[in-house]
Amino acid sequence: MLKYIKETNLSIIPLEKGNVFHALKTTESDFQGFGEAYFSTVNYHDIKAWKKHKKMTLNIVVILGMIKFVFFDDRKNSSSRGKFHEFILGPNKNYSRLTVPPGIWMGFQGSNIGENILLNIADIVHDPNEIERKELESIAYRWD
Amino acid sequence: MLKYIKETNLSIIPLEKGNVFHALKTTESDFQGFGEAYFSTVNYHDIKAWKKHKKMTLNIVVILGMIKFVFFDDRKNSSSRGKFHEFILGPNKNYSRLTVPPGIWMGFQGSNIGENILLNIADIVHDPNEIERKELESIAYRWD
Repeated sequence: MLKYIKETNLSIIPLEKGNVFHALKTTESDFQGFGEAYFSTVNYHDIKAWKKHKKMTLNIVVILGMIKFVFFDDRKNSSSRGKFHEFILGPNKNYSRLTVPPGIWMGFQGSNIGENILLNIADIVHDPNEIERKELESIAYRWD
Repeated sequence: MLKYIKETNLSIIPLEKGNVFHALKTTESDFQGFGEAYFSTVNYHDIKAWKKHKKMTLNIVVILGMIKFVFFDDRKNSSSRGKFHEFILGPNKNYSRLTVPPGIWMGFQGSNIGENILLNIADIVHDPNEIERKELESIAYRWD
């Protein structure tokens, strides 16, 4: 079981008529099961925060634009307790996948003018009962 | 088992900071299993054709731009044998999912100036041995 966030570089297959971008295969260790896939977009400079999943493991890929992700760990007994971790993903600079185990607070911000789109391949179907939310100001992170 | 192509309208959840777009849930009948998810892009006016999967069921969503899909059915005993079927998908005009069973020839063309991106959620991992290809000219369809 994954304890913390894992970043994995993904392949881009260059093709004359349009590239192919890998996202997730069942043969990869980050695959924890499939429950649902959905897209979330975030406007330039807007922040979607904070959200924590009690059960869901997320596999996140940014297919358009650039998105900054911030994680805050308040789990007891976690070696990264009280720390922030930042990742910036996008197809042109850092085409990678984030695998996020349950229990960690997450926020994200649109970094590109224009559209910013992420795909989440989650191991369970959306269930409002397994999601906790906090106001943006309730975790003291300095957003841009 | 699905016999022909199925088009399903998908939900877009409007949110102030950026919309959420549904793609596929295990609880939907179009879910045939998860093997791999990948993105394919196609430049404006370019055509990627023809390809047929012997085993893979595809679940295709267009998250950016607009893509025209053309299917040609040459399966014996199929009621749509010898016919073309066309679909145009995109998040702004027709946000839908195509579920494509194995055995049908597929081609697609970028309809928007700028980027055109599809997500395929396939029930098996990519396997070159289950794919057949034909030259564009070998199936007499009149592309734009």
